[in-house]
Amino acid sequence: MLTLYDCATAPSPRRARILLAEKGVLHHSVQVDLRSGEQMGEAYRRINPQCTVPALVTEEGPVLTDNAAIAAYLEATHPEPPLLGRSALDKAEIASWQWRVEFEGLLPVADALRNSSPAMLNRALPGPLDFAQIPDLALRGLMRVQHFFAVLNEHLAEREFIAAGQFSIADITAVVVVDFARAVKVKPGDEHPHLRRWREAMQARGTMA
Amino acid sequence: MLTLYDCATAPSPRRARILLAEKGVLHHSVQVDLRSGEQMGEAYRRINPQCTVPALVTEEGPVLTDNAAIAAYLEATHPEPPLLGRSALDKAEIASWQWRVEFEGLLPVADALRNSSPAMLNRALPGPLDFAQIPDLALRGLMRVQHFFAVLNEHLAEREFIAAGQFSIADITAVVVVDFARAVKVKPGDEHPHLRRWREAMQARGTMA
Repeated sequence: MLTLYDCATAPSPRRARILLAEKGVLHHSVQVDLRSGEQMGEAYRRINPQCTVPALVTEEGPVLTDNAAIAAYLEATHPEPPLLGRSALDKAEIASWQWRVEFEGLLPVADALRNSSPAMLNRALPGPLDFAQIPDLALRGLMRVQHFFAVLNEHLAEREFIAAGQFSIADITAVVVVDFARAVKVKPGDEHPHLRRWREAMQARGTMA
Repeated sequence: MLTLYDCATAPSPRRARILLAEKGVLHHSVQVDLRSGEQMGEAYRRINPQCTVPALVTEEGPVLTDNAAIAAYLEATHPEPPLLGRSALDKAEIASWQWRVEFEGLLPVADALRNSSPAMLNRALPGPLDFAQIPDLALRGLMRVQHFFAVLNEHLAEREFIAAGQFSIADITAVVVVDFARAVKVKPGDEHPHLRRWREAMQARGTMA
């Protein structure tokens, strides 16, 4: 059985957790305590030298140490339901939105939080190296998050899902980003009716734990 | 036939160009003049509202406006040779390195260049919005690029390719990143013998135009 190294309060492992739930894949879970810095300790470093969660131990043995690897692996080993798309154009549209949600949404929220939170001094980037906070990058991140909420809201005006007319990994990543943005006090508001409708529909799937 | 909106001097469209060459896909090319800002003009905005190159016009009609979409589409429509991997574990390892090369290599080079070049004032990010330069982000980018060269060099010490023991899209992205880093005066040096050997082997493929 697969084992997921997880952390219930962090956005990145949540992406893997939802993906496993949507694929209906039974797995073991091990909580890693990010608050106490367990991911930087020797024991976890032996599992994932990147010092990040999620990490997924495959049945074949190798450990997958990021969401990109986990998504590619699960789509190949558990193809139904397809969450990366079936046709060439669907795959393209889903990959494009997955990338946009990461680059225009996830990174800006992380920039905003990690470059401003007193708890993250010198932790402006995840991973084994320390980086000092850059206050201007926190401000830029906040502006980009707000812009991205407007982009997503407009995009969802006449769509049920983010990409290709179907539930996909891009919806999973977008749910995680929209919820993660609360950490920098950005939430869907009255000006984002389509984004709110979509977020409620995602909640009703019962997999967004 | 496919049409690629390209720019011979820019790193992002080069990724698509090499991918098409490695897949052996005949296509039309249209050069977009980034120096004069043609990508921001009305004509190009109608093709790609993201105002970026590459853009690939598919035979079915839709335009793919980023490398993530282009790679997913070409792998589905031209599966041989597979550049995203064949087995589940190969797909995972290639996706992981593709993501690392983008996040730990490509973004840091872009951060270093776009936040310092006098020619890119207010163009600290690609796309339709203007963002002011952040000098500290340029410095951080430079540190991360140098660190990434060391990581890649060590990774390649006993490997012929970046991932999964085969030529893949991760090699393409890494070639583009290593060459793009010259724009911020970082080059493989005597301390990077494995990186240099790999880069020379990539050149010998004849597709790295």
